[in-house]
Amino acid sequence: PAAGSSSGSGPGVSLDSSINLDQGDPALFEEYWRKAGERFNVAIGGGELMSYFSNLNSMCWFLLPELDVSVRRLHRLIGNAATEGRHVVVGTGSTQLLQAVLYALSSGDSPDQEPLSVVCAAPYYSCYPEVTGILRSGLYKWEGDARSFDKDGPYIELVTSPNNPDGSIRGPVVNRGDGKVVYDLAYYWPQYTAITHQADHDIMLFTFSKSTGHAGSRIGWAILKDREVARKMIKFMEVTSIGVSKEAQFRASKILGAICDGYESLSPEVLPESFFEYSKRLMIKRWGKLEEAVKLGGGIFSLPKFSREYCLFSTEFTETRPAFAWLKCKEELKDAEGLLRAHKVLARGGSKFGVDPTFVRVSMLSREDVFDAFLERLSAIKGGITSNGSHA
Amino acid sequence: PAAGSSSGSGPGVSLDSSINLDQGDPALFEEYWRKAGERFNVAIGGGELMSYFSNLNSMCWFLLPELDVSVRRLHRLIGNAATEGRHVVVGTGSTQLLQAVLYALSSGDSPDQEPLSVVCAAPYYSCYPEVTGILRSGLYKWEGDARSFDKDGPYIELVTSPNNPDGSIRGPVVNRGDGKVVYDLAYYWPQYTAITHQADHDIMLFTFSKSTGHAGSRIGWAILKDREVARKMIKFMEVTSIGVSKEAQFRASKILGAICDGYESLSPEVLPESFFEYSKRLMIKRWGKLEEAVKLGGGIFSLPKFSREYCLFSTEFTETRPAFAWLKCKEELKDAEGLLRAHKVLARGGSKFGVDPTFVRVSMLSREDVFDAFLERLSAIKGGITSNGSHA
Repeated sequence: PAAGSSSGSGPGVSLDSSINLDQGDPALFEEYWRKAGERFNVAIGGGELMSYFSNLNSMCWFLLPELDVSVRRLHRLIGNAATEGRHVVVGTGSTQLLQAVLYALSSGDSPDQEPLSVVCAAPYYSCYPEVTGILRSGLYKWEGDARSFDKDGPYIELVTSPNNPDGSIRGPVVNRGDGKVVYDLAYYWPQYTAITHQADHDIMLFTFSKSTGHAGSRIGWAILKDREVARKMIKFMEVTSIGVSKEAQFRASKILGAICDGYESLSPEVLPESFFEYSKRLMIKRWGKLEEAVKLGGGIFSLPKFSREYCLFSTEFTETRPAFAWLKCKEELKDAEGLLRAHKVLARGGSKFGVDPTFVRVSMLSREDVFDAFLERLSAIKGGITSNGSHA
Repeated sequence: PAAGSSSGSGPGVSLDSSINLDQGDPALFEEYWRKAGERFNVAIGGGELMSYFSNLNSMCWFLLPELDVSVRRLHRLIGNAATEGRHVVVGTGSTQLLQAVLYALSSGDSPDQEPLSVVCAAPYYSCYPEVTGILRSGLYKWEGDARSFDKDGPYIELVTSPNNPDGSIRGPVVNRGDGKVVYDLAYYWPQYTAITHQADHDIMLFTFSKSTGHAGSRIGWAILKDREVARKMIKFMEVTSIGVSKEAQFRASKILGAICDGYESLSPEVLPESFFEYSKRLMIKRWGKLEEAVKLGGGIFSLPKFSREYCLFSTEFTETRPAFAWLKCKEELKDAEGLLRAHKVLARGGSKFGVDPTFVRVSMLSREDVFDAFLERLSAIKGGITSNGSHA
């Protein structure tokens, strides 16, 4: 194939090798896209997409107009976010957009201002403290769990819904007049949860990685009501990366657009199944298997409970089936990450998410063989004693 | 065409419209790539390049192995930088890499350390103070002109050679034992200057934008001697953008590789002319025209002088022909940027580069019709009085 295989994990899972489920690499969706056909392919000539500029008539001068169109079309199709009259700003993944938002909300005129507090209810996405803290910015500062936040003055609250790591549906918890709320809606797509309403917040972040599984592209987008916030975010992207890769934008526009074409065409689907139906089916299957394995474990691990909601997109009742399993081990076992690691499963422990180490986050989006090996190893864990007799 | 036209400036230059030569958008090279043929095209299937990961066996886990190979091949071909035994780290343009370098050199263990001073000899690239200052980092701080830098203690000196904006060949000026030097070699390519030696510094930055003109891709690379610096830079890219767009990396690897193929093949060239010969010829032609226009202006503007050096790549003596013209107007005219603006030429004034406003930086890489219109407008400036009689 022209662009090679993108999976780094090699062929098959050997008995001895560790399984890496620490990151949320969405390999699960690759097979669909490999078979999905030509309308999702892109071709780029040597002389195309060369300029820094994508649209001189737009405030977001680096955003490809066709990506703007595809993003709005997709949200209209899914019904998960309002885009009419909103500004769309593209970023190098939603990670860069988060930094752009922090900059936009905290950069005032006064050089002597105190850093703005940034909070999120625990368990929070482990990257938030890292991204917020890496440069020791004087503009903003990570202040941890929103539930215990009691400083006076303005603040930024990050709300991830469905939440990473635990899949819960969330709203803000601080709720003070001087706060700004940033909604990270990376997982608000039909394969992960019911689309219960059209989200319509001031600041919403989405990403190509989690919507379709194209993580390698590093494309995210923000949907914004306020022109001044959009302007400052664009400024941030201009200064820190002079825009966003056009090849990645072009491919994202093509793939998102072709998904919409498929749903909107009157003729029968070219594919046996559209992407969101396919990926929802996969997630239901995996969660069924995981719940079964956890049940057979006899109480060593437990999982969060999810309520059933009516999904406006699929027009049926459905449960949240998150991209991550948020496993909790029995209190006396103490270290859930260590317990999995002893069984050669690498995952991310609770302390990185601001909670205790009886929790661990495990990716549900791995390749099929890796997921099956994970279930096997999980099933082998017996009350702190591994099935081969050694202590975990 | 599959990927649309990337030039945002529209068809032709009308008499009334302003010419934007503020940025260095390398539109000049587009025509070459449009005609360069299929071996510079890329095709990417819907299921390719999907993972976050590019190479699990490499410290730089997001660098596509084929880009690593192409970068090293190209430097060997041109002879402009040593890569053997060095680490190659890819970034979202050299702009992100610069931030990664600042982070790598300044992030110590002590949370109470003073911000590390960052300096560059004036005239310096106008983006350096912006990038360094945007987040008011506690790790590092822009301290301006390296020539007047007199603080004690460790520092970082940025050395751009050939220099942006003035094209001068540079080395460090502070020269103290506790300093780290970062070489920005964006313009150390045969179309801009003589390749007089194989650069072999600890930290060197290059970019796809200026080497071949593919600015929209946002691909840069660092060549590094020190493993620990590389590790920290990779960490920065991981936290702030979870790697670098794979589509852009893939295309860069293809184009840089195909350039090398062309030079290395024993059969006659597929193209009438290889890229570096072609682009060098264009730059010589443009500089000839500009020097002529400046001379005819009767001393209103002057240009830097460049010495002739032997180029090891082209095996002939050649002058530097920078990507920017660094024009100085007569002292009594005071404001070179304003003078050009009055003639509908938008360019970047000296104060942004840390020098006085009699200087102005003008891109030499615009489309042909834009460049010709620029020369025409430049020729119309007569001692502060425009040719139509109004004051500039």
